[in-house]
Amino acid sequence: MSIDNSVNGTASSTVSSSPFLKAIVQQIRGQDTYGTYRNWADDLILKPYVVSKQKKREIPLDGEVDPLTKARIMAFYRGVAACIEKETGLISQVVVDLSHEGFGWVLVFSGRLLLVARTLRDAHRFGFDSLEKVAEEGTKLVEKGIDLAKRFPEVGKL
Amino acid sequence: MSIDNSVNGTASSTVSSSPFLKAIVQQIRGQDTYGTYRNWADDLILKPYVVSKQKKREIPLDGEVDPLTKARIMAFYRGVAACIEKETGLISQVVVDLSHEGFGWVLVFSGRLLLVARTLRDAHRFGFDSLEKVAEEGTKLVEKGIDLAKRFPEVGKL
Repeated sequence: MSIDNSVNGTASSTVSSSPFLKAIVQQIRGQDTYGTYRNWADDLILKPYVVSKQKKREIPLDGEVDPLTKARIMAFYRGVAACIEKETGLISQVVVDLSHEGFGWVLVFSGRLLLVARTLRDAHRFGFDSLEKVAEEGTKLVEKGIDLAKRFPEVGKL
Repeated sequence: MSIDNSVNGTASSTVSSSPFLKAIVQQIRGQDTYGTYRNWADDLILKPYVVSKQKKREIPLDGEVDPLTKARIMAFYRGVAACIEKETGLISQVVVDLSHEGFGWVLVFSGRLLLVARTLRDAHRFGFDSLEKVAEEGTKLVEKGIDLAKRFPEVGKL
């Protein structure tokens, strides 16, 4: 548990070395109308993305997905979209469609091209083992999206 | 008003001459677990899609979109998807993402290709002037989708 809760040098360096993590932080700070996070370090803002297996088991799956969790999912995929935009110039939309049971779709698209298309399951428990894992997963999605955008530029610009 | 409420020969012939309207009816009958519509004529099943301008003005826009209206929107776009599938063989997903205020997106996609991408506004008032108009709008979307599927077959099959 000490690893999950530490806010130390390692976490900070993870954030500063990952353009994707920086993109998520930017998304969250951009939505921070009341300045709640103004004095927070980047790694503290990202901490809720780290949910240990044990913690996941403790989150009940009944009832609507928590609005904060939804916002977290949204910021994650908006971060993906922002990174793809930086590389390809394609501006994209993020659509998250969750049922009341936490099942659903996340779609990131530009023109008529789906850059990311993922099903979500147990969205209540959205999270990763570590910050490195967040960066890894996001970067994978970004790379796949950039690859698609480059292979089918005309579809992305429709 | 008499036109909106008539269930006469004209309406039936509209349904039987439009593959798209037949596709919506099929969607609705397919979801009809309790056999509510078993003895209903096709045009009666489709009647809720006809909402006059006057009636639209009477539907309030506050509060969540009615589940029946959501189901109606879903059946409409599932009908579009079914017609595109019949022509192209592409099986597609329909995602409807509505905010509590009735704004949102409808997306029909196959592989990484968006066959339909529409923003919805005032979804509470989803409806058309006449059954002919329903058929016309749907057919337009189907044709556009088939056209895209044929132009970018590899994206649709990803």
